[in-house]
Amino acid sequence: MAQKFATREEDYSKWYNELVYRADLAEHSDVRGCMVIKPYGYAIWEKMREILDAKFKETGHSNAYFPLLIPKSYLSKEASHVEGFAKECAVVTHYRLKNAEDGSGIIVDPDAKLEEELIIRPTSETIIWNSYKKWIQSYRDLPILINQWANVVRWEMRTRLFLRTAEFLWQEGHTAHATSTEAIAEAELMLDVYADFAEQYMAMPVLKGRKTASERFAGAEDTYCIEAMMQDGKALQAGTSHFLGQNFAKAFEVKYADKEGKLEYVWATSWGVSTRLMGALIMTHSDDEGLVLPPALAPIQVVAVPIHRTDEELAAITEKFEALGKKLKSMGISFKYDHDDNKRPGWKFAEYEAKGVPVRLAMGPRDLENGLVEVARRDEKTKQVVSFDGVEGVIEQLLMDIQENLLNKARLLRSTNTRKIDSYDEFKQEIDKGGFFLAHWDGTAETEAKVKEETQATIRCLVLDEPDENGVCMVTGKPSQRRVVFAKAY
Amino acid sequence: MAQKFATREEDYSKWYNELVYRADLAEHSDVRGCMVIKPYGYAIWEKMREILDAKFKETGHSNAYFPLLIPKSYLSKEASHVEGFAKECAVVTHYRLKNAEDGSGIIVDPDAKLEEELIIRPTSETIIWNSYKKWIQSYRDLPILINQWANVVRWEMRTRLFLRTAEFLWQEGHTAHATSTEAIAEAELMLDVYADFAEQYMAMPVLKGRKTASERFAGAEDTYCIEAMMQDGKALQAGTSHFLGQNFAKAFEVKYADKEGKLEYVWATSWGVSTRLMGALIMTHSDDEGLVLPPALAPIQVVAVPIHRTDEELAAITEKFEALGKKLKSMGISFKYDHDDNKRPGWKFAEYEAKGVPVRLAMGPRDLENGLVEVARRDEKTKQVVSFDGVEGVIEQLLMDIQENLLNKARLLRSTNTRKIDSYDEFKQEIDKGGFFLAHWDGTAETEAKVKEETQATIRCLVLDEPDENGVCMVTGKPSQRRVVFAKAY
Repeated sequence: MAQKFATREEDYSKWYNELVYRADLAEHSDVRGCMVIKPYGYAIWEKMREILDAKFKETGHSNAYFPLLIPKSYLSKEASHVEGFAKECAVVTHYRLKNAEDGSGIIVDPDAKLEEELIIRPTSETIIWNSYKKWIQSYRDLPILINQWANVVRWEMRTRLFLRTAEFLWQEGHTAHATSTEAIAEAELMLDVYADFAEQYMAMPVLKGRKTASERFAGAEDTYCIEAMMQDGKALQAGTSHFLGQNFAKAFEVKYADKEGKLEYVWATSWGVSTRLMGALIMTHSDDEGLVLPPALAPIQVVAVPIHRTDEELAAITEKFEALGKKLKSMGISFKYDHDDNKRPGWKFAEYEAKGVPVRLAMGPRDLENGLVEVARRDEKTKQVVSFDGVEGVIEQLLMDIQENLLNKARLLRSTNTRKIDSYDEFKQEIDKGGFFLAHWDGTAETEAKVKEETQATIRCLVLDEPDENGVCMVTGKPSQRRVVFAKAY
Repeated sequence: MAQKFATREEDYSKWYNELVYRADLAEHSDVRGCMVIKPYGYAIWEKMREILDAKFKETGHSNAYFPLLIPKSYLSKEASHVEGFAKECAVVTHYRLKNAEDGSGIIVDPDAKLEEELIIRPTSETIIWNSYKKWIQSYRDLPILINQWANVVRWEMRTRLFLRTAEFLWQEGHTAHATSTEAIAEAELMLDVYADFAEQYMAMPVLKGRKTASERFAGAEDTYCIEAMMQDGKALQAGTSHFLGQNFAKAFEVKYADKEGKLEYVWATSWGVSTRLMGALIMTHSDDEGLVLPPALAPIQVVAVPIHRTDEELAAITEKFEALGKKLKSMGISFKYDHDDNKRPGWKFAEYEAKGVPVRLAMGPRDLENGLVEVARRDEKTKQVVSFDGVEGVIEQLLMDIQENLLNKARLLRSTNTRKIDSYDEFKQEIDKGGFFLAHWDGTAETEAKVKEETQATIRCLVLDEPDENGVCMVTGKPSQRRVVFAKAY
């Protein structure tokens, strides 16, 4: 290709930004911090959405929709919640524009000032619990298991495509329960749903864990998370599931009558994943030639390119590929035949490589004559020439192999870059190289803050179901019962 | 049921509002003009969305996503566009909240004022054409066929659930073309998609037509629409498709180089349907007992209720219904078995009637003994007792019959309430009774405005493909080549 792109080695961050443009996934809009998700990027997000939505429904959830705009006073009802979000709120103060009297153009009409300002939802706990208050009277009304697919706005100062944008798309589950036990089980169940999705579809291994108190969601009693490792060794929080205790029920006075008629506050969870997953997907698998997609999420799984000199050759190759396309379609495999005459085969190869199409087929006149077809796999950049008869079986197997191979490669990367560490001096020397560091920590916010200040590394999570291990905090030498995961993060 | 609800006869408007609550479709939120779409209502919208989305993709469109927030200056670039939307814009002026220094609570931080105000999109032509400008250089980049599923905000002063809300959900297609002919064909194609969807899935007959100049979308050269008749005889605009000419291309300076390298402005369309369709669906079919749903859009197509005294009876009935449920599921028919012991059968019957479930089954001990089941259809409120063996075939046929019957009934209602009228005096007497009035009009905005002022009726559309008919305007007596459709409208 004409243009030279940054490699991961040279400049990981530049590589990422260029890749998002090369693969035509998204671009910056002229609105500060907001992105345009282009059709190819959106098609991947749609696949994610469809799979997750089915999983939410299988686990008993229904979708609903709550208002975009939240009265300022609602946000303030839960103290730590507003503390967490106040600094990044887009605020609606007026509801009309008008022509300036001096003819200078369109201005905000000062007479159309709202009595109470409205906030564009940064997350919907407050507006939803204001509704749940009306919906919940008795234990018979519980549980409420609702999910919402929506856009949210958080006025981030430093933004990056998909990873951190002022507006992003996400789903937010909000559930209400009669008991603490049931709510905790729900938060854990949804964490499992996220982890399964990440591994089975995104081919991205994740650690399931809990956040420390200082990394919790604003308003949660406990925040569960899935943490993935990117190719540069940095951690990326890919999804969170919160046990909210009775915090929002208390803020909005939501009580239910139990079987004996006694009034109790309701227990809550919330959980979400966002278009940030797109960033995680890109950084987990892609290489210097462009995007690499797991077949389960690829909008186009197989692309075929004809190589020909004459129209007769093209017609014969087209016939073959169109017949194959029908077979693949009936097998549930998405197929594109690109016979655009304005572009040369080499250009197309690079284009579909940049877009991460898992399998590429090519057929020239000699292949045609010999009943052969070239099959290239994107993940390993290897090619084989096989018999055209029965190639659909080869492709089907190859797609499964690629899906598995990507997960295995990502697992290997993670295990290679995960290690136990006991010396804080060594930690400080090593942390910039990236990776997960399993270290003992004394459990105090002070030590956590000190490490963050001195190294920019944070405790990503306390991994669930890990056995206890006695040791001493690498920083303070105080006793510790378990190791936690430190890393630098996106 | 304990509560007495308004009938259509008594108070159509009250009937509608109560029905939305009874069927648990949506409710007013505490945010002015914004609604909460509840799970049952959202499930119907999801079905609509899924079917429409497949139709958009079949006709070559891809989904994408553009920012929620539009700089004020963009909106102003197309003169008639800003004129049309300025009066109902939600304006973001600040990006941060803070604690008031006097401790009085959370306030908008005056230091976080935006340099340029942002508008929450009322529609996305401007933000999208600002992107298309970057995407289009040559004829090879055309056509662009994109759709977006999104929320929009129009600060309406008088709102009604689904029909007119400050925030609503919709899809907006935005296409770019090399020629005027191609853009007009696209606008007409999408009108056909909408009309087919309305008739085949919503069982709602529609007129396809064009709007008069004064009823056009702000910024369009031509607005096509589908118009339906509600049970009270009022018209409801259910979808629009706009030929935008080169208006937005000129406002955003979007030109393409044709094959000869000559620069031309790009031609555009936009088209949309919204959650307003939910209001149309409700008002087309429902009756005094509640919602009536066409099977093609019903989240639950069949509900079964056991009638029993003993646990043994319940167990035997449950076994039957669960086996039936599996069969129906394999036939693609959605089924719910409601054996909730806390509610009596009569209560359930009324509940599913209110929710518009097309087919209801009931089985008591005697039915069980005799191998029978009661099958009730929601649309006609008739029941039959049939053999349980093979009831799945009866149900399948019944669902098709109901779908067809609803469309036929709606067609009959429309034809009964559509008539030619030639005298303006008679028109003024008759218009309040509702219905479509086919009248000659002299083609002037003045006459149109006079009729609107004197009767509140508007020209709903100039029906497409209607033969010319010479006559004279019912108001002015001036010559006219065709009749147009007048009606009062939602």
